Amino acid sequence: MSKNIYEELRRFFEPKSVAVIGASEKPGTVGRAIMVNLVENFKGKIFPINIKYDKVFGLKCYKSILEVPEDVDLAVVAIPAKFVEQVVEECGKKGVKNIIVISAGFKEIGEEGAERERKIVEIARKYGMRIIGPNCLGVYDAHTKLNTVFNPPDRQKYPKPDGVAFISQSGALGAAILDWLAQLDLGLSKFVSYGNAADVDESDLIEFLTFDPRTKVITAYIEGVEDGRRFMNAIRNAVRNNKPVVILKAGKSERGVKAVASHTGSLAGSYRVYEAALKQSGAIIIEELWELPLALKALAWLKPPKGNKVAIVTNGGGAGVLATDAVERNNLVMAELSKETISRLREVLPPAASPYNPVDILGDAPAERYREAIKITSMDENVDMIIVITIMQSPALDAVKLRNYLKELKESIDKPMVLVAPGGKYTEEHSKAIELEAKIPVYKSPEEAVKALKYLYDYMVLYKRITV
Amino acid sequence: MSKNIYEELRRFFEPKSVAVIGASEKPGTVGRAIMVNLVENFKGKIFPINIKYDKVFGLKCYKSILEVPEDVDLAVVAIPAKFVEQVVEECGKKGVKNIIVISAGFKEIGEEGAERERKIVEIARKYGMRIIGPNCLGVYDAHTKLNTVFNPPDRQKYPKPDGVAFISQSGALGAAILDWLAQLDLGLSKFVSYGNAADVDESDLIEFLTFDPRTKVITAYIEGVEDGRRFMNAIRNAVRNNKPVVILKAGKSERGVKAVASHTGSLAGSYRVYEAALKQSGAIIIEELWELPLALKALAWLKPPKGNKVAIVTNGGGAGVLATDAVERNNLVMAELSKETISRLREVLPPAASPYNPVDILGDAPAERYREAIKITSMDENVDMIIVITIMQSPALDAVKLRNYLKELKESIDKPMVLVAPGGKYTEEHSKAIELEAKIPVYKSPEEAVKALKYLYDYMVLYKRITV
Repeated sequence: MSKNIYEELRRFFEPKSVAVIGASEKPGTVGRAIMVNLVENFKGKIFPINIKYDKVFGLKCYKSILEVPEDVDLAVVAIPAKFVEQVVEECGKKGVKNIIVISAGFKEIGEEGAERERKIVEIARKYGMRIIGPNCLGVYDAHTKLNTVFNPPDRQKYPKPDGVAFISQSGALGAAILDWLAQLDLGLSKFVSYGNAADVDESDLIEFLTFDPRTKVITAYIEGVEDGRRFMNAIRNAVRNNKPVVILKAGKSERGVKAVASHTGSLAGSYRVYEAALKQSGAIIIEELWELPLALKALAWLKPPKGNKVAIVTNGGGAGVLATDAVERNNLVMAELSKETISRLREVLPPAASPYNPVDILGDAPAERYREAIKITSMDENVDMIIVITIMQSPALDAVKLRNYLKELKESIDKPMVLVAPGGKYTEEHSKAIELEAKIPVYKSPEEAVKALKYLYDYMVLYKRITV
Repeated sequence: MSKNIYEELRRFFEPKSVAVIGASEKPGTVGRAIMVNLVENFKGKIFPINIKYDKVFGLKCYKSILEVPEDVDLAVVAIPAKFVEQVVEECGKKGVKNIIVISAGFKEIGEEGAERERKIVEIARKYGMRIIGPNCLGVYDAHTKLNTVFNPPDRQKYPKPDGVAFISQSGALGAAILDWLAQLDLGLSKFVSYGNAADVDESDLIEFLTFDPRTKVITAYIEGVEDGRRFMNAIRNAVRNNKPVVILKAGKSERGVKAVASHTGSLAGSYRVYEAALKQSGAIIIEELWELPLALKALAWLKPPKGNKVAIVTNGGGAGVLATDAVERNNLVMAELSKETISRLREVLPPAASPYNPVDILGDAPAERYREAIKITSMDENVDMIIVITIMQSPALDAVKLRNYLKELKESIDKPMVLVAPGGKYTEEHSKAIELEAKIPVYKSPEEAVKALKYLYDYMVLYKRITV
């Protein structure tokens, strides 16, 4: 493990200049989609390469990368598989050090493709080049806007810049998740669809991201891993550097393993062995896809708790009970509030309210009552995490005031706090505002909020175990 | 169990005339909110009752219900607790048979309130009246628009008419769920927040809904039940009448049980005992709140499967693997496709596609390929349920065509089919359209889709066990 890998892979994301081999204006082509992404958003130099054209989107188009008169940091290759070998050789001669091969038609189609793949790797080794792909969507960097994902822009949106990196063995699913995170306003540092991983693989990427200053949380969708030991080491090192690694692993069941074999040709191996090894390396394992955004919000926006004791403040008794059930089911603990906290709560709450945990501040609670109850509860030494539940449909609650109070509280409370707000459009609008203004994760159900805190707590435990 | 209960409770939902006791135009009052709901949407006669006013929203206002010159089917009471007893007595004299008492200040505040509650029940018994409440939000009927939920209309939306009935022991949480279902475009027949259940309780309501022709699926949020045996019988009878009963029970953990006691004063009892009894009665038990809409869509829109064998058709290999994992985790079975099916699939799919289950029709699949693959797969005798996975970000897929094909297929295939479509805005718009046009449930993740099918399969098993 060295910083070498950081310098080697960095230009995939922050190239000063990019050559697009297979650049085109022809509708429906990958070469066009990538050119549109770059021309519209990328700030560096762009060199279209295509034997057929003189100009592409107004830029001079070269017949070969060898004709480009300037240095090229990154080449993106989107041409039929049979021409890729020659083009990679030319990239080597040109001195390009980083290549993304989008093209399919390699290992995934059988022996003929596998032979092609071996050849391009050989050439890359010869010239000291690194390759992402083939058979991939490549890279989206939210900061530099280097983007080789070629889905139509009306169908595919991209997350704003923030601290989550996401690498995906599956291109299609990866892009769909990207689109989903964009809608959730969950920011990203980098996305990589690494396809067949002929050269750069999941371990390289995790090593790289460990050094990437823009990445705070690393997420990976994986089906199979070639070198398990290297992968585990990469994860352990990331965690040592205080970067949570979140893994969604497909191929957990016997039938799933078979499906992986037919999908990517990877050997998924026994999931139990994987799971044990991943946990030992400090990875946070996400069981199901829908949990991914839920966990990422908590890991990206909140500091881990000191312990596992949860306090709940709610204006809906029923939702408080559901949250309590979920706390116990997820092996967290309901905090026992101190006598002092209880008596201070009694002072500010109406007589019918409950000053015990869950703290039920009643259906007629205005925003001020929330502020007081959260402040008092969060100061209790027995409380490590706080779940605030708001039934925003209540006529008594001024949601704008609540938003402002929560923002203040987030800044002054040194413990992770999440919000639960079940409901429709009105509730969602205010929930979104709270997430954007205060970076407090908001969930529709109590159980999702508890699950998010569980992952956050798990991370603290894993981090301690790894760094001790 | 008799049809008597149906006639007794029917007027809570379909009254020809309603008196609002405590009617007002004063902003922020419950009496105003209920009047606004009724004046704007309810088609029957409305009689405002308030000693202070001559007119409310242009309608003649009476000092007492005894002054109303016509028959009153339903009285809605929203006045301070201490005046409720007298008003209920007057309702009895007037011949009103159904009363919703919104007012709080009864059993939930202690012995004084409990005494008040006993008195109004006594009066109701004397006159043969039925009471919903007190301390509740009352009723929303999606068909007649009888609506006593008093949350501000900008904060609280209501589902359109359809076949799901929802009863809730918690008013606040119930209303939030109502708002959520509205946003999801999941239609409702009736909603009831029954509060302290002084008279009409969860068992009465389930008995009533069993006879209600507009209700196809019954859902209940409950914390505690007074008469467990009656409740179980009511559920069993509903299931015998082929109405799935979906229960979300709060107070499943030790701490949750304690929280219930402090919230509603109900004895939640041991959840394990409950769970066993509920399952034996044929209830579908939802573990967590976020699963509720997921299960309701499947139960309301799809016929139960004949067996537990699932086939998957996907344009994203990774999502297919996640779905496969989830099938096995949820005790369903991946269908083994027949040789004939496999060879027919081979004929219509490209060579690189996988004709085995999960059927991977590849990332470049157009809508036509979906149609063929779904048609062939669904005809296989070994297939009981179908999960279609679409990565809609794909440049190859025409979502509008896909929508039309799915609508046709839903009509011609006699097996439950659900769709998985992960993504953002574009994907969501088409997903919503598919739900509205074809009543095919759409889920963001493979695991949610599998969970929905599991509940549907569970219902089939429960129904068979109960009706044998």
